Amino acid sequence: MLPSGLVDGYRLWREARLPQERGRLAQLAALGQAPQAFIIACCDSRMSPETVFSSGPGELFVMRNVANVVPPYQPDGRHHGTSAAIEFALLGLAVPHIVVMGHSHCGGVKAYLQSSFDENAGSRGDFIGHWMDLIEGAKEDALAREPGLLGRALELATEEAAIRLSIRHLRTFPEVSRREAEGTLTVHGAHLDIANGQLTVLDEETGAFAPVLGSQLIA
Amino acid sequence: MLPSGLVDGYRLWREARLPQERGRLAQLAALGQAPQAFIIACCDSRMSPETVFSSGPGELFVMRNVANVVPPYQPDGRHHGTSAAIEFALLGLAVPHIVVMGHSHCGGVKAYLQSSFDENAGSRGDFIGHWMDLIEGAKEDALAREPGLLGRALELATEEAAIRLSIRHLRTFPEVSRREAEGTLTVHGAHLDIANGQLTVLDEETGAFAPVLGSQLIA
Amino acid sequence: MLPSGLVDGYRLWREARLPQERGRLAQLAALGQAPQAFIIACCDSRMSPETVFSSGPGELFVMRNVANVVPPYQPDGRHHGTSAAIEFALLGLAVPHIVVMGHSHCGGVKAYLQSSFDENAGSRGDFIGHWMDLIEGAKEDALAREPGLLGRALELATEEAAIRLSIRHLRTFPEVSRREAEGTLTVHGAHLDIANGQLTVLDEETGAFAPVLGSQLIA
Amino acid sequence: MLPSGLVDGYRLWREARLPQERGRLAQLAALGQAPQAFIIACCDSRMSPETVFSSGPGELFVMRNVANVVPPYQPDGRHHGTSAAIEFALLGLAVPHIVVMGHSHCGGVKAYLQSSFDENAGSRGDFIGHWMDLIEGAKEDALAREPGLLGRALELATEEAAIRLSIRHLRTFPEVSRREAEGTLTVHGAHLDIANGQLTVLDEETGAFAPVLGSQLIA
Repeated sequence: MLPSGLVDGYRLWREARLPQERGRLAQLAALGQAPQAFIIACCDSRMSPETVFSSGPGELFVMRNVANVVPPYQPDGRHHGTSAAIEFALLGLAVPHIVVMGHSHCGGVKAYLQSSFDENAGSRGDFIGHWMDLIEGAKEDALAREPGLLGRALELATEEAAIRLSIRHLRTFPEVSRREAEGTLTVHGAHLDIANGQLTVLDEETGAFAPVLGSQLIA
Repeated sequence: MLPSGLVDGYRLWREARLPQERGRLAQLAALGQAPQAFIIACCDSRMSPETVFSSGPGELFVMRNVANVVPPYQPDGRHHGTSAAIEFALLGLAVPHIVVMGHSHCGGVKAYLQSSFDENAGSRGDFIGHWMDLIEGAKEDALAREPGLLGRALELATEEAAIRLSIRHLRTFPEVSRREAEGTLTVHGAHLDIANGQLTVLDEETGAFAPVLGSQLIA
Repeated sequence: MLPSGLVDGYRLWREARLPQERGRLAQLAALGQAPQAFIIACCDSRMSPETVFSSGPGELFVMRNVANVVPPYQPDGRHHGTSAAIEFALLGLAVPHIVVMGHSHCGGVKAYLQSSFDENAGSRGDFIGHWMDLIEGAKEDALAREPGLLGRALELATEEAAIRLSIRHLRTFPEVSRREAEGTLTVHGAHLDIANGQLTVLDEETGAFAPVLGSQLIA
Repeated sequence: MLPSGLVDGYRLWREARLPQERGRLAQLAALGQAPQAFIIACCDSRMSPETVFSSGPGELFVMRNVANVVPPYQPDGRHHGTSAAIEFALLGLAVPHIVVMGHSHCGGVKAYLQSSFDENAGSRGDFIGHWMDLIEGAKEDALAREPGLLGRALELATEEAAIRLSIRHLRTFPEVSRREAEGTLTVHGAHLDIANGQLTVLDEETGAFAPVLGSQLIA
């Protein structure tokens, strides 16, 4: 049996919210999905892309892994879950937008930073350490842009650098570059501050992130 | 700039829903997350775990890949995104429940079935084919349980078999088995019919899936 | 030895319910609590906040005293149990919601009303009388809103007035006001009719209490 | 409006569980409460006395403050919430049992231990530091029984010592001693390990705590 918290939550959805969605779900099941965007996000329980974008069924194709990482294109015949999702989103669904969406207080980025300061800082685990190697160089990128950063400020700058890095990796997929050149795909970087809900987006010209709703700051 | 659909959705969340969540988000940012369950789900845009379980911030740690696949434990020093998420959920967050959550009309399962019928049926892509190899044997399992299945019925039975297979893979992770034996972790299988919202759960004794809310069928 | 009623109840919990909670409890012990709400309730045996809100481990931080009273902020170096709980909930746990939760048939409110009608009506005890002085003025507030109330109706109106008064006291704590202004804390008043389970919530604009589930009355 | 988590939980209680309790609640509202025990517990969200003792309405009169502390009898005309609850339980409800119920991982005890090691260890707050002064001497008691304790073992021993101290304070209330002598009141000490649900009870002869269900250890 599922834990009671999930059963209760499902019951609530089915009784209070599903009735308004029934027709839309039946339609999407019959005709197939055609999501407006592909979101590459983190597993973190404090940020759900569907919630932050108020999205309904069929709108967002969502891949989530630890620290919203994109590995570089490497067609070596092995199992690559993230790359398979990218391929599915492009070849299967022709998504017009990809958003690499990071967030503040990211545990994966923290683990990367700790091991970057002290290689003997305790076990990197069987998988997490190797996985976070994919953002190697993000700390250096952050510090190159703004030397002397420490603590939370360094974490934030590293989260942003990791998004820029994942976008570079994304463009090593031939299909991504081809569609960007063709004008049928746009790639975005975004970062959510989970403490106050502030969403910033990457300006690729400058590498900086700015609030998506302009200068309105959230208290 | 993000596509306007996302910007509008974010604006709506920030103005209408964030104010009620501000304190909870600030709390979870300060104290850290302790999600009640780890959901392994598909990227499909027609099923969001947070929606189906009516869950709020901090409740669900969510990994999503194509076809909610769990690879077997393979600590070979390579990049394994799904395995890293499993490790993070257990070692970092001590989640008490893992739910492998499949769904109907799954594009990944369809791709697997098509290539299983005809190896020359067109490109398996650089990644999707290899990724779906991880559920190899699911069709045979489905047909062994109920010979002669075809079309949508075979798809459904294969989706269910793939969930059982992923749960077997999950148990090859030593930490999963250890915690199950200790009584601090429970593994669940669940399947959502995206056309009508019916959620079924796996009975591991029989391998069958039954409605989570009992025999009440949804009209 | 504990009384057998408690031992039997504990045995039942441990055998029938604990197995489903083991993992969640171990997780919360390891990671710490981050309760979604702080409930200030009465000691009365006929109302348990965890029961009324169907809440599981980790969800509610619960302070209970006679008549769910909040004293005003008075940092005088003495022992203030209720104020210490408020401080712990805010500084230690950053709770996003505080609910002052009163109830019908409250013995503390009855004691206050009796002594307010007849100062010589028998002993106020060493402590109860002084404790209930903290809601002084609640009867007058109730009668000002609806003159002529008597008996149970006056009791109910006084219970509601005492909740409003405790909320005013709560706001004399600088940290409560600061967080309310910042948008990270919401204060609520609620009242449970223990005879029929009707829960009403305070509308601060009008000072009135209305059923939390709308106008549906419980038979 | 209450947070949706509470509204959903209340709805669930009202629809699924209240129907079975309606008659009992109406009876208890009409006849008054006569609880079998008075529990003095902590506010911690990870331990609810009603849950641990599987108790229904009317069974437990429950006072909760930070770290389940009982101050000594001090009838000085000031507001003493805990003392008022004790007086109400005895004079108003003639409870036959009082249980001082502590628990593991107690934040209040941790705060006391930290400040006992370093008086300058940061702010004690306006109230928490003074409140925890009420268990002054508990660390020394713990170390006198078992010298050299450190870390979690010292925490546990201090939690137990604080329970013994609160029981001594309880007996400074003349009415407690009188009823104990008369044979109409029994005082108990209990401690819950929130990580595994193990409940131990105080043996006043030795000062030690032993599992309430005998030697059955929980894995």
